[in-house]
Amino acid sequence: MTNSVENRLASLGLTLPTPAAPAANYVPFVIDDGYLFVSGQLPMGPDGLAFKGKLGETFNIPDGQEAARLCGLNILAQAKAALGDFDRLKQLVKLGGFVNATPDFVDHPVVINGASDLMAAVLEERGQHARFAVGCSGLPFGAAVEVDALFSIE
Amino acid sequence: MTNSVENRLASLGLTLPTPAAPAANYVPFVIDDGYLFVSGQLPMGPDGLAFKGKLGETFNIPDGQEAARLCGLNILAQAKAALGDFDRLKQLVKLGGFVNATPDFVDHPVVINGASDLMAAVLEERGQHARFAVGCSGLPFGAAVEVDALFSIE
Amino acid sequence: MTNSVENRLASLGLTLPTPAAPAANYVPFVIDDGYLFVSGQLPMGPDGLAFKGKLGETFNIPDGQEAARLCGLNILAQAKAALGDFDRLKQLVKLGGFVNATPDFVDHPVVINGASDLMAAVLEERGQHARFAVGCSGLPFGAAVEVDALFSIE
Repeated sequence: MTNSVENRLASLGLTLPTPAAPAANYVPFVIDDGYLFVSGQLPMGPDGLAFKGKLGETFNIPDGQEAARLCGLNILAQAKAALGDFDRLKQLVKLGGFVNATPDFVDHPVVINGASDLMAAVLEERGQHARFAVGCSGLPFGAAVEVDALFSIE
Repeated sequence: MTNSVENRLASLGLTLPTPAAPAANYVPFVIDDGYLFVSGQLPMGPDGLAFKGKLGETFNIPDGQEAARLCGLNILAQAKAALGDFDRLKQLVKLGGFVNATPDFVDHPVVINGASDLMAAVLEERGQHARFAVGCSGLPFGAAVEVDALFSIE
Repeated sequence: MTNSVENRLASLGLTLPTPAAPAANYVPFVIDDGYLFVSGQLPMGPDGLAFKGKLGETFNIPDGQEAARLCGLNILAQAKAALGDFDRLKQLVKLGGFVNATPDFVDHPVVINGASDLMAAVLEERGQHARFAVGCSGLPFGAAVEVDALFSIE
């Protein structure tokens, strides 16, 4: 299963980023009783925060989707760091989608699709998740999107 | 138990809406290890989104409570779709309450009561839940309220 | 274990507040299947809400950290009310950090550190948690910070 996940990432032209260190005094993931809790991930790329600004102002929807996809890629990197590989990953149970957006922005679900679509493409059946998508007045370091995740594991 | 839940809904003059399809590439609920995770629900009525606008601007508190109640009704509809009936529903563990509100609005808890009161009225003991209530800069499609839910199930 | 937690609180000059009653029709905590869910806590002190205002406007970062720390103290008070003491508390699994902040505020993680640092200081290993930190357009009663929590328990 791990190979297939890694293969699907490769076939999408994606490589897992170095899992971001926590921005503060907490840990990037906690494993407890069959669940893996991943802390809120920002759109961090090789050169740091890749999407700084607001939807409806700095960024348009395709930018936001790219930012959400990058949050998702960082979630997968944390999951791999937590579990070693993707074999023990049973199900992506839930994504929490936070969009840094102006008060008149209404397309939060379309933005968070960037993360949801990545999970479906990479994890297939195991990527089917519940979620919420909401607008935030601001996000850490001015990030455009933040996404956290809950996985069930074996 | 199912009959009593359905009866209490009827005695409140409420009928369960058709569970809303997800607005994006995710699923409306996930069942995993004794828990039912319901995706964020909007105040969808028979003619679509019934409350579009902001608390403190478009809507007053009673409007907001009605919107939150409708989110709650959609949560119950998803729970029924997930479980078939309400017998397996053990406990409403948590509601996440997101209110689309202006920066000076402070009555988020009173608004989310619309959902909490519905759960108490319909599920009785099983409707006693933990929750948060917060203000969002915006919500999907301009909805006034979004609520997600976690149930424990048998 | 209980004594050491209480001792560490005392050595920090902290006393647990009276657990805040819920602001609405819900309960301050739910225990279910090895988990303790604590409702969103506000920075309540002996004289009520102690930090009313916005980060980036009314309050600076040290104020916000103090507010977050007070939210954390209220979480610990709820945990003690739920469990009787801290012996059954296995792990702080997750904190949800909501900061009432202006659209240009970007230091949400530093603010929520007020709660995370308290948990690390008081619960030590058991205080290592996943979390998110986001900006809200507003919070209940105008509170500067709201934090909810998930613990695993024995």
